[in-house]
Amino acid sequence: MRGVSVEPVPSASTRFRRVADNLGSTMAESDSGDLSRVVATVRERIDPDAAERAALRDAVDELTARVEAELADRSLEADVLQVGSTARGTWLSGDRDIDLFVRFPESVDRDSLERYGLAVGNAVLPDGHEEYAEHPYVTGRFDGFDVDLVPCFDVEDGASLRSAVDRTPHHNDYLRARLDDEFAADVRVFKRFLKGIGAYGSDLRTRGFSGYLTELLVLEHGGFEELLRAAADWHPPVELDPEDHGTRSFDDPLVVVDPTDPTRNVAAVCSAENVARLQHYARELLSDPREAVFFGSDPDSLSEEGVRGHVRRRGTHPIAVVFDTPDVVDDQLYPQLYKSIAGVESELARRGFAPIRSATFAADRAVLLVELSHRTLPNVERHDGPPVHVRPHAEGFYDAYAAGDDYGPFLDGGRYAVEREREFTDAAALLESETLFQVGLGTNVERKLREDYSLLVGDDVAELADEFGVELARYFDPRP
Amino acid sequence: MRGVSVEPVPSASTRFRRVADNLGSTMAESDSGDLSRVVATVRERIDPDAAERAALRDAVDELTARVEAELADRSLEADVLQVGSTARGTWLSGDRDIDLFVRFPESVDRDSLERYGLAVGNAVLPDGHEEYAEHPYVTGRFDGFDVDLVPCFDVEDGASLRSAVDRTPHHNDYLRARLDDEFAADVRVFKRFLKGIGAYGSDLRTRGFSGYLTELLVLEHGGFEELLRAAADWHPPVELDPEDHGTRSFDDPLVVVDPTDPTRNVAAVCSAENVARLQHYARELLSDPREAVFFGSDPDSLSEEGVRGHVRRRGTHPIAVVFDTPDVVDDQLYPQLYKSIAGVESELARRGFAPIRSATFAADRAVLLVELSHRTLPNVERHDGPPVHVRPHAEGFYDAYAAGDDYGPFLDGGRYAVEREREFTDAAALLESETLFQVGLGTNVERKLREDYSLLVGDDVAELADEFGVELARYFDPRP
Repeated sequence: MRGVSVEPVPSASTRFRRVADNLGSTMAESDSGDLSRVVATVRERIDPDAAERAALRDAVDELTARVEAELADRSLEADVLQVGSTARGTWLSGDRDIDLFVRFPESVDRDSLERYGLAVGNAVLPDGHEEYAEHPYVTGRFDGFDVDLVPCFDVEDGASLRSAVDRTPHHNDYLRARLDDEFAADVRVFKRFLKGIGAYGSDLRTRGFSGYLTELLVLEHGGFEELLRAAADWHPPVELDPEDHGTRSFDDPLVVVDPTDPTRNVAAVCSAENVARLQHYARELLSDPREAVFFGSDPDSLSEEGVRGHVRRRGTHPIAVVFDTPDVVDDQLYPQLYKSIAGVESELARRGFAPIRSATFAADRAVLLVELSHRTLPNVERHDGPPVHVRPHAEGFYDAYAAGDDYGPFLDGGRYAVEREREFTDAAALLESETLFQVGLGTNVERKLREDYSLLVGDDVAELADEFGVELARYFDPRP
Repeated sequence: MRGVSVEPVPSASTRFRRVADNLGSTMAESDSGDLSRVVATVRERIDPDAAERAALRDAVDELTARVEAELADRSLEADVLQVGSTARGTWLSGDRDIDLFVRFPESVDRDSLERYGLAVGNAVLPDGHEEYAEHPYVTGRFDGFDVDLVPCFDVEDGASLRSAVDRTPHHNDYLRARLDDEFAADVRVFKRFLKGIGAYGSDLRTRGFSGYLTELLVLEHGGFEELLRAAADWHPPVELDPEDHGTRSFDDPLVVVDPTDPTRNVAAVCSAENVARLQHYARELLSDPREAVFFGSDPDSLSEEGVRGHVRRRGTHPIAVVFDTPDVVDDQLYPQLYKSIAGVESELARRGFAPIRSATFAADRAVLLVELSHRTLPNVERHDGPPVHVRPHAEGFYDAYAAGDDYGPFLDGGRYAVEREREFTDAAALLESETLFQVGLGTNVERKLREDYSLLVGDDVAELADEFGVELARYFDPRP
């Protein structure tokens, strides 16, 4: 279910892809002739050739005919639309996704739509299987392509949709009317660029740029290079509204008002860090155009000895909570992991262990990793009281502590202060206690932790290299 | 030169006197009958009896006659005034200070005033010696009293003074016109109270309440108990202006505009902590009146083993800079020690060693003591860079670090960050380096440290118990 699995925490921590030859560049912009040559080279690798296009067209024609036949057999009033990147010429060579939507009139009730949709899908793709997003659809292989057959309603516009997928045909219409071959080529280049830097995808693991967003951004700026130059100078929040019809405000670093729905931000899922990543690499590419940026690759897996070497060199105190990965889809898993690691990190910070960085990984096992400045702390911790002049509050504080065996209360300037016994002097003890469950874990993460988990402390985290060597290599070389 | 010598840092840290039976009291006010009985008992111990008064009067009369004779011998136009607490009946039994001012006309030039003043003083107190405050005077013993003979100018009012002591006769006139026997008795009680809690004295070591301030506060509130009740409810900044003639504003926690000088705050030297100390003990005394508050005593000296026990129990990392005490008067020494320990503490805080508390002591040796949460730190320290969108600044940051061998720069949310090598991973190494001299030490402290100093680290600070056992006892039991 899961493939690659570094998941440094977005925003509170690290989320990065390392590009091989990316160091030591200066950022003065070079001339665009260099960039054009690099783009031309990239295009040679990603533009689908005539044979690929023909094969795709044939498959789509055949599938469309089959769906229409099935609809006719059942006397169903519905039409068939090809949508997605393969419908708009914006797919990258080698991508094999065909999306066909079966569009029913709004008068059909939801149950019937689902039932008819699945019946037609199963008939057309007899070896396929049913999937459930917001509502069910059929997915399967056909002539070497991955095909999704999705039923939807024929709604007036994006704002009046009855299910989340009803927007898609409107997006498709909007883009097909505007994307000529040259724009489509620039979209492919931009997609490849975003993939290369690790910012492509609106899934909740990546929190990056969706395909639709990518296309709108290229259109809005008039091409790939123009978009790069604009992005290099963005001052988030950046607000774009291609149809100039937005009706609300958004609290996101990047806002692109959906041309088919004035109330929706197409970039809502895109994190501040991915916006910054785009800006960083836009500048990199403009100042020193090179193909490698488009084809960032995983670093070499770090060995156990390599992890130990970094821990020694850094002089820090890593600590990892390790547990069986909950069996939920990535769009549920990763938000929970991010929430959990943020909760663990901030609790450890609040308790004085001074986290330096944190990350979360998942494969068979899931990991919440925090690197601390201190594993242990003094037995006493200072607790500031109220100013002495706030009489009832000050007297309450003084009386509360005067009878105990804390150090104090004493006067510090105009306030009371006390040095109390610290609840946790060892971060490991904290993570072994019930306090772990009070930091705001995700539901499924909490459930798995309740079943069982283990702690790895100090350079024992090197044990993780076996399963997460690539992720640890990125963690210990976090350059973008 | 120096006697007792705890000097916890004012405001940034601790300054406290421990009162023997002061714990576990509740703070609801008790009836004032109890307080009156306690005050009556205190008065039995501090009111000068008839014999003491008579002896004082005789000594003053004899001294005054001698000074007048010396003035006449020299044909000097000047008068003699008795000033200070013994002139106003506000001294505590056993205090033996006589202050006589020799007041010259304003027409005398400063050199002549100093010359005549010293000549007369030396003639009257042939066994005395010359002291130099703002200008010179003679001090000596007479009939068992400590006598100061001080020349001053006869100025119009406090605001037009030619030397700092010219105010004193005006203060004296103002108070003598207002302090009857009953007020004088209350002033004595208030002084004894301030001495008991360690807040009496406007010297720069104590930064507490001067005698003149004490008298003005009792007058202004109409008595000791009334003053206590008012102080218990103060909300600093507290501003009093007995003559309602103040012409400027002050940035002090307690402001008492001098009745003889509308531009002067009599309480300028009084620290926020001593104002808070007065408030704390006013409430204590009102809620649970007892004599002990008036006669706070030093705690038992802490042994080396006792110090080690506290360090172990606290789990902290104390570190002390030890050096020969500079040979300057306390009013120069203590401000320099306070400044130095504040500088050391804030530098260690800035460097990540998380000080818990600090103190400075002085006897033959002087000590700058800081108690740290961590003696050592990781080799890396996080350094946050600018938001990526602030292009020139962000590019400068990235380029500055990209070529180095730091961890990063990397993206953290919308910003760059880097993990740099920490300059000092050991607090002892920092205090052994030139950095110690860059924290804003006092001049004489810096000079002595340049000559030589040693560091005591961890429970080696126990070695200090021999010279500073009482101070360390207070440090480790900081309750007020």
